[in-house]
Amino acid sequence: MTFVNEHYLKLRGGYLFPEIGRRVEAFGEANPKLAERLIRCGIGDVTEPLPPAVVTAMHHAVDELANRKTFRGYGPGTGYEFLRATIAEHDFRGRGVDIADDEIFVSDGSKCDCGAILDILGPNNRLAITDPVYPVYVDTNVMAGNTGPGRDDGSYVGIEYLPCTAENGFVPALPGDAVELIYLCYPNNPTGAMITRDQLRAWVEYALSINAIILYDVAYAAYISDESLPKTIYEIDGARRCAIEFHSFSKNSGFTGVRCGYTVCPKDVQAVTRKEVEVPLHDLWTRRWNTKSNGVSYPVQRAAEATYSKDGAGQIGELVKHYLGNAKRLREGCESAGLTAYGGLHSPYVWVVCPEGIDSWGVFDRLLNEAQLVTTPGVGFGSCGEGYFRISAFNTRENTEAAVERLRNVSW
Amino acid sequence: MTFVNEHYLKLRGGYLFPEIGRRVEAFGEANPKLAERLIRCGIGDVTEPLPPAVVTAMHHAVDELANRKTFRGYGPGTGYEFLRATIAEHDFRGRGVDIADDEIFVSDGSKCDCGAILDILGPNNRLAITDPVYPVYVDTNVMAGNTGPGRDDGSYVGIEYLPCTAENGFVPALPGDAVELIYLCYPNNPTGAMITRDQLRAWVEYALSINAIILYDVAYAAYISDESLPKTIYEIDGARRCAIEFHSFSKNSGFTGVRCGYTVCPKDVQAVTRKEVEVPLHDLWTRRWNTKSNGVSYPVQRAAEATYSKDGAGQIGELVKHYLGNAKRLREGCESAGLTAYGGLHSPYVWVVCPEGIDSWGVFDRLLNEAQLVTTPGVGFGSCGEGYFRISAFNTRENTEAAVERLRNVSW
Repeated sequence: MTFVNEHYLKLRGGYLFPEIGRRVEAFGEANPKLAERLIRCGIGDVTEPLPPAVVTAMHHAVDELANRKTFRGYGPGTGYEFLRATIAEHDFRGRGVDIADDEIFVSDGSKCDCGAILDILGPNNRLAITDPVYPVYVDTNVMAGNTGPGRDDGSYVGIEYLPCTAENGFVPALPGDAVELIYLCYPNNPTGAMITRDQLRAWVEYALSINAIILYDVAYAAYISDESLPKTIYEIDGARRCAIEFHSFSKNSGFTGVRCGYTVCPKDVQAVTRKEVEVPLHDLWTRRWNTKSNGVSYPVQRAAEATYSKDGAGQIGELVKHYLGNAKRLREGCESAGLTAYGGLHSPYVWVVCPEGIDSWGVFDRLLNEAQLVTTPGVGFGSCGEGYFRISAFNTRENTEAAVERLRNVSW
Repeated sequence: MTFVNEHYLKLRGGYLFPEIGRRVEAFGEANPKLAERLIRCGIGDVTEPLPPAVVTAMHHAVDELANRKTFRGYGPGTGYEFLRATIAEHDFRGRGVDIADDEIFVSDGSKCDCGAILDILGPNNRLAITDPVYPVYVDTNVMAGNTGPGRDDGSYVGIEYLPCTAENGFVPALPGDAVELIYLCYPNNPTGAMITRDQLRAWVEYALSINAIILYDVAYAAYISDESLPKTIYEIDGARRCAIEFHSFSKNSGFTGVRCGYTVCPKDVQAVTRKEVEVPLHDLWTRRWNTKSNGVSYPVQRAAEATYSKDGAGQIGELVKHYLGNAKRLREGCESAGLTAYGGLHSPYVWVVCPEGIDSWGVFDRLLNEAQLVTTPGVGFGSCGEGYFRISAFNTRENTEAAVERLRNVSW
């Protein structure tokens, strides 16, 4: 008999978004006419087309592959030098942050990296994960056997949950118990909150003091509209020794269907064997990519490179401005409807307090039924998300304005 | 302290191809003039440009992403229905083989799938792996902790190696001890050998009799030029209950840089928990993809779809014919040089016996130094590969003919 990875059997029934999809589908079947009015502000998927500079670069790369003289087969497992160097220069060194080209690992998306990083880490690390949280951090740890069984409230034994609430500005307090792996994401998904440089410094110092590693997700970094806020954890002294950072082209460049991201793994990040021999994670991560992958599609890597060109950067700036404009309208719309709203300033997400007496799936159902708005119930991101719902600003301006109008007309 | 996955530390110094690269680079530095003559018949990377139908499809898909009306963001984690259905119809149902659309899982390459499949399997399965072999099967199991430590000869404790030699036609005998996971690859890399339908049936019956699973790699299926030979394991009765099959667009369609492959996981394949509860692997594999990935780049999926169009299929047929023509010339060239050669009939690889008294790295070095030919030493694929070297037919016709000429002029 062949044995399964039994840890998969601990996973809860479904990933959040399939459940939302199921409810939306059921609504559509029961109300075919009303379903035509649906505005989707649920999943964080972009709606605007690719920037022209990216389109041109992809066409050019495809033409290169169409010609024997310029054809390219297998690329480097960790990404082409042209892209690694461009990223390191523009996102780090050009901004005074010390990251080498070969500390950039190109991938087909930051979701994949969040799971893949666990390949090189041991099963005996204690985890600290924010609550609410992007479900992938938790589920990939369950699958890797890094947690105990699930509890009725959807949490898992073996994870120290770090509550993020309006009271702490959605930036958690340092863990009470020692941990080895800490997941942080700012600008935050789902709360839309941002962390200050001082707050992030406290986390880095804490991680260094207990030899923990911070897995820092900056998929939404492009939405930071205040230069005093940290765009990368490596702006903080010491982070090169304790942090691995995940980046995405999805939300700034519209790459949710193109698929590209990257991970920064500095050479100074060490972990240990059970006998406390230090091992640089950079070596293992390189080995992981070269053994388990042949790298990212060549036209996709050229597309990512184009986002840093002068034209590309300008076009991406416009895209982000568009979504931030939506976020501002949504937040103000919620407030004018008498709701308490957070986020939306440095993030495409607005995090809204549920009106008294209705829980987050209750709000989801009411907005679906009464306003044909698809949102995301906060509890889907963890038990501290109960009492909130998330509205995504990834939409056309027209849909956003219609959504605001409908939010105002719901009588709570 | 954060703990590493210590299994990585069991891995041998380097993957085979980096070592080849190192020797070629050293040769080039010592002999810059001669290095200009190098002909690369080492790594199995294609040289011909993408088929025109694929190029057209990729351009079209990029244009769709450039327009808000036709833009697509996140796709399904397991692949778009348009591609899954096309694959299932053309590669299976149209040939009388029962595979459903949703048993096809689209990925960014079959190398990735070979590693990823271990995510859903337990650590306590006994492994049977052919020798010589594509190194990825072994290394990914080492990394996942499914083996013991390495031995001096490059093998690992905990793997039952299945010798593939000229004597058994490079199709191994059934394992002596019971195993749970069996890796087979036909047309074979590196030996270029093919398996008959009767031989494959014996393996399927054996796997069913001991409740083992066969991981069957058909990355080179397009090179089978005899209709009586099995193009997929699912041509064999019962394989739906015991086999997972890996496919690639790399070697037939020139996708080594485009990155696309697929895995077939039939709903009938079950594994068990330690308490012997049966679990369909299809469910876990689906969950794995939806949790750890957002699927393959949209233009890449359209490119893969185009390989099945009438034009695309014809163009791919020509590509394969070209490389098979090279393989025939290489095999005949070796024979006329007095060498014993195998493979090259249903495969782009020719597997050549080293002349007496020279081992496989010895042949590699001599061909590099005396003929400026880059080949692959057989021992790099496992200890049963000692005494052989591999020549790849992935080249232009011109280079292939020059390589044949040079092979003839080496005096052993």
